[in-house]
Amino acid sequence: MAAAPRADHPAVAIVMGSQSDWTTLTHAAETLDRLGVSYDARIVSAHRTPDRLVAFAKGAKAEGFRVVIAGAGGAAHLPGMVAAMTPLPVFGVPVQSHTLSGLDSLLSIVQMPAGVPVGTLAIGRAGAINAALLAAAVLALGDEALSQRLDAWRAAQTDGVAEAPAAGA
Amino acid sequence: MAAAPRADHPAVAIVMGSQSDWTTLTHAAETLDRLGVSYDARIVSAHRTPDRLVAFAKGAKAEGFRVVIAGAGGAAHLPGMVAAMTPLPVFGVPVQSHTLSGLDSLLSIVQMPAGVPVGTLAIGRAGAINAALLAAAVLALGDEALSQRLDAWRAAQTDGVAEAPAAGA
Amino acid sequence: MAAAPRADHPAVAIVMGSQSDWTTLTHAAETLDRLGVSYDARIVSAHRTPDRLVAFAKGAKAEGFRVVIAGAGGAAHLPGMVAAMTPLPVFGVPVQSHTLSGLDSLLSIVQMPAGVPVGTLAIGRAGAINAALLAAAVLALGDEALSQRLDAWRAAQTDGVAEAPAAGA
Amino acid sequence: MAAAPRADHPAVAIVMGSQSDWTTLTHAAETLDRLGVSYDARIVSAHRTPDRLVAFAKGAKAEGFRVVIAGAGGAAHLPGMVAAMTPLPVFGVPVQSHTLSGLDSLLSIVQMPAGVPVGTLAIGRAGAINAALLAAAVLALGDEALSQRLDAWRAAQTDGVAEAPAAGA
Amino acid sequence: MAAAPRADHPAVAIVMGSQSDWTTLTHAAETLDRLGVSYDARIVSAHRTPDRLVAFAKGAKAEGFRVVIAGAGGAAHLPGMVAAMTPLPVFGVPVQSHTLSGLDSLLSIVQMPAGVPVGTLAIGRAGAINAALLAAAVLALGDEALSQRLDAWRAAQTDGVAEAPAAGA
Amino acid sequence: MAAAPRADHPAVAIVMGSQSDWTTLTHAAETLDRLGVSYDARIVSAHRTPDRLVAFAKGAKAEGFRVVIAGAGGAAHLPGMVAAMTPLPVFGVPVQSHTLSGLDSLLSIVQMPAGVPVGTLAIGRAGAINAALLAAAVLALGDEALSQRLDAWRAAQTDGVAEAPAAGA
Amino acid sequence: MAAAPRADHPAVAIVMGSQSDWTTLTHAAETLDRLGVSYDARIVSAHRTPDRLVAFAKGAKAEGFRVVIAGAGGAAHLPGMVAAMTPLPVFGVPVQSHTLSGLDSLLSIVQMPAGVPVGTLAIGRAGAINAALLAAAVLALGDEALSQRLDAWRAAQTDGVAEAPAAGA
Amino acid sequence: MAAAPRADHPAVAIVMGSQSDWTTLTHAAETLDRLGVSYDARIVSAHRTPDRLVAFAKGAKAEGFRVVIAGAGGAAHLPGMVAAMTPLPVFGVPVQSHTLSGLDSLLSIVQMPAGVPVGTLAIGRAGAINAALLAAAVLALGDEALSQRLDAWRAAQTDGVAEAPAAGA
Repeated sequence: MAAAPRADHPAVAIVMGSQSDWTTLTHAAETLDRLGVSYDARIVSAHRTPDRLVAFAKGAKAEGFRVVIAGAGGAAHLPGMVAAMTPLPVFGVPVQSHTLSGLDSLLSIVQMPAGVPVGTLAIGRAGAINAALLAAAVLALGDEALSQRLDAWRAAQTDGVAEAPAAGA
Repeated sequence: MAAAPRADHPAVAIVMGSQSDWTTLTHAAETLDRLGVSYDARIVSAHRTPDRLVAFAKGAKAEGFRVVIAGAGGAAHLPGMVAAMTPLPVFGVPVQSHTLSGLDSLLSIVQMPAGVPVGTLAIGRAGAINAALLAAAVLALGDEALSQRLDAWRAAQTDGVAEAPAAGA
Repeated sequence: MAAAPRADHPAVAIVMGSQSDWTTLTHAAETLDRLGVSYDARIVSAHRTPDRLVAFAKGAKAEGFRVVIAGAGGAAHLPGMVAAMTPLPVFGVPVQSHTLSGLDSLLSIVQMPAGVPVGTLAIGRAGAINAALLAAAVLALGDEALSQRLDAWRAAQTDGVAEAPAAGA
Repeated sequence: MAAAPRADHPAVAIVMGSQSDWTTLTHAAETLDRLGVSYDARIVSAHRTPDRLVAFAKGAKAEGFRVVIAGAGGAAHLPGMVAAMTPLPVFGVPVQSHTLSGLDSLLSIVQMPAGVPVGTLAIGRAGAINAALLAAAVLALGDEALSQRLDAWRAAQTDGVAEAPAAGA
Repeated sequence: MAAAPRADHPAVAIVMGSQSDWTTLTHAAETLDRLGVSYDARIVSAHRTPDRLVAFAKGAKAEGFRVVIAGAGGAAHLPGMVAAMTPLPVFGVPVQSHTLSGLDSLLSIVQMPAGVPVGTLAIGRAGAINAALLAAAVLALGDEALSQRLDAWRAAQTDGVAEAPAAGA
Repeated sequence: MAAAPRADHPAVAIVMGSQSDWTTLTHAAETLDRLGVSYDARIVSAHRTPDRLVAFAKGAKAEGFRVVIAGAGGAAHLPGMVAAMTPLPVFGVPVQSHTLSGLDSLLSIVQMPAGVPVGTLAIGRAGAINAALLAAAVLALGDEALSQRLDAWRAAQTDGVAEAPAAGA
Repeated sequence: MAAAPRADHPAVAIVMGSQSDWTTLTHAAETLDRLGVSYDARIVSAHRTPDRLVAFAKGAKAEGFRVVIAGAGGAAHLPGMVAAMTPLPVFGVPVQSHTLSGLDSLLSIVQMPAGVPVGTLAIGRAGAINAALLAAAVLALGDEALSQRLDAWRAAQTDGVAEAPAAGA
Repeated sequence: MAAAPRADHPAVAIVMGSQSDWTTLTHAAETLDRLGVSYDARIVSAHRTPDRLVAFAKGAKAEGFRVVIAGAGGAAHLPGMVAAMTPLPVFGVPVQSHTLSGLDSLLSIVQMPAGVPVGTLAIGRAGAINAALLAAAVLALGDEALSQRLDAWRAAQTDGVAEAPAAGA
């Protein structure tokens, strides 16, 4: 069954433009851990390591990945450039930038031209978590066990919402 | 094989907040047509038809859909609310709004809180096309024939880029 | 007299998307306390607890509420979705978001399409206080005693403005 | 019953900063007409007719109005200044401005300081319609007949949403 | 000579919307002190003390003021409303707001409609200093001694700019 | 009396960055005409004619001008650079730019550093009219006849505001 | 002399993301024509032709180009990706986008991380002209004849600025 | 060979609007140091020292500079005004401003009108580093030794990117 994670290779590639992006993307990794989805996290800088970018993106499918999560900040070209070179679904996480709070990251990722899609999540930590959940939802289409784990995760999330605010009326 | 489109039900649901959004979302439909991906297009207004929203979102998976494309403009709540009620992957298309050019639509769709992801595409027509391509990429994980059609579409797209501008030097 | 707060049920529902929003919405509660307006504060997450959302919004009027104050941040869908399912006046409070300072919250709440209104207040604490004052003004239309308390509150506010800045010329 | 529209005076005051705002605010008037809510539409420029502003705002309640809808564009001070001088609920409509598309109008109206609320609606036509609906919802708290007309209007709105886009799949 | 500061009344009125604005506006006062321009600093809240606003603005010229500096934040209506009720030149200082960094303050002050001008300065401290300098430049048109003091101030400012950065190459 | 317009020299210099800005600045000229204030309109490009800029700005006071109105668009440096080289009051008009609607023009003019003020008006036509009115208000401080003409203009403006919208209820 | 344009190869590469960008970039070509600077204009889509991108960027210097002008719109990755793979100076032109007026293009090009520079010009036509002028200024460092042509062009530009607006006072 | 740095004069002028900008521009200086490119760093305030600005800009080429790096914040006029008075390539660094995070600085620098180019880098530290790298790339066109040092710097940068995040999976 094609969409099921293979035992011999991580299902999700988490790539990020620099070490500093890991503060954000680690939340994607933790979420995948919780859902029992295998992944590999790598630094792939579109600007500083363009050869690594090309090698990674062109080889991602053959290597065995099924979904790519790509995070970057500022003029964030990594998600879009990966999407240009792989047929796999690519989900982009705009990392909060120092000067413009991630608005530049967001627009650089989401405003892709027709033909090369990047499914973009929220700026920062929430986006990283959600990229993992979206990757899991995609993989769950072909993995009933994961589908059930994801349902359980969502149910637990719903159950975890208190009825009233802690210091409420 | 779970991710393959079933003969008896469209694989993709295209939902939009109003008739006027169809001008944008029709590009998603056309793209799916070209890729041979079945879909059903419906109007589901989060605000004007909340019961229809709940019925659609809660039933989308059981009904047989595998991916949802949701487009809306302004305070665009449809994609996020669908995502709140279905485990299926949801891709959001911000429709260009009259006053703020779709920046409001974009932020209303992409800035989802941790826990409920919407993979967001570009504002307007490009986003609608890309939502279809991303949906196809997801479905292609479990559908080798579609995977090949998508590869062919991408190759044709690459071949269609002229070397020099038409009225160039 | 229909608009008067009933002894047996709080007049105002304060709903918020998450526990963290209480830091902001508590100012609405405090203001209602000062004005002698009864309220009930609840967590209703549009995204994580959609069933609770539907149950609350559809039942709010029958339950006895007369006005709803709804606060949320980021892709803030709670106020608009409540407004979609209740005929009661809904006032929205954009909670200041981490990355975009609440501009996303504001646009997600205020840019509602024609047909489903949310009266939106300022981002953050000021908005929460003002949502309470606006709710009180609405209730005061049918409650002369509240009207007088509100007038007194406003007069005291005016009297509390010093003539010159404390360390002035 | 206090909140019921009185036969001898319009329930809603629609005030606008200039004749050109009428293109937007007329949608509020038409909506009130449809709902059977009486109103009076006036031009009150905060900047060009400050005396008229003071007279209107201070006298609005005594004159018999119960709700004020105020629309203005650019540095839109009218809604906030009316709210400063009346205990009635004030709903603000940001008129779309020529240069900044109404973002200036929106921020000038919604970002009121704590103490003086303006319930703000969307920029432009949708905001005008919704200001009328919100005013009606407020008045309906004390007017069962209006409450039923509003329910009928909402039900008709829901019924008017087609199942599928007109030129759909 | 009309433009000269009169011995019996401050030339400049510094008005601000609240005590908290004094942190910003105090820089206007200090600058006027350095230039030997008399002033009076007052709190005049457009929203919380509308009567005081009207009394101040309508009486400012007769009272003896020649220029008004008005500072406020958020939906900053004070400068524009003063300008609506006085023929004196009004200079506006957008106070940096908590949520939107003063962009709301700036647009609320500068985007005045044709007919009622407010000469607007930069957001925050720089704007407060510059409002004082601009007021002085206006007064200096009719006050040769002030003109010379202002020239000296400007010359000293120029002389105070170092040739190279302190920790330079 | 220093602030009175001299018969032998225009009181106001209207300078603009290019011929195309005249579409906007002509409204300043027309307004000064109506108020009987003399002016001279010139093209002074900070970028394309820097020598002319220096000559104009340094000589403006000696030449006999009393107030400068400077309009420019995009990276609008003209108002600030004139202000850097003249002690006269400078009022800036942000011309609406093609791509960013004048937001760039506005920020380039208004965000001057402490020490060199530009009193900035609204973007576009309204700003041009208001720059003229503000210049007149400044000149009126030393010109009783102008003061009376300005009062009359303002009174006529107030009288010209209709009570109700033309196609009103 | 290294910086002089070689007879056997164009000095400047003008690359753009799509045919539609030629409407903007043609102004760069025309400007280079006027200055007698040779160039070659090509379509290189970072997203649709990534191989062409890599081949062009890696080979640009060896091929004989000395400066690259790269224009693109939306999530504009072309300039930055070229800069990642060539040591040549790269100047970026943000093409005005349909929905966000080129603000997305600008931020995607200018906000490059430390290590890979793109000298960014204004959005649209002005930016294209200026990219050509900047390229010429760079080449003129090693080409005295071009330096003189550029000086002449600048002098003519200065001379072409009229003293007064055409329909002026 | 014209583009080679001369032994007797720094190749690059780093100018900034104030001492406080040195915190940002020092990164340009450090980068040039690492690349073995000579420079001179000066404070040249367009607004407070306009004579120094004119003298510097007009004399920069004759003095022996080959490239200018200019940094400023807020209404940042320095880069554009230098570009107006020198044929040398000018690269602009938007310094992060206190209130608007450098968006004002960026637009004031990048949105230059056709005819006077400023190659603009990112806001803040990254922009300063990149201005130095871009200046070096320009100088390297006529300086083979520098070209090799720049290549080595870029190679080292690439080598310095770790394969996986430090605390990775």
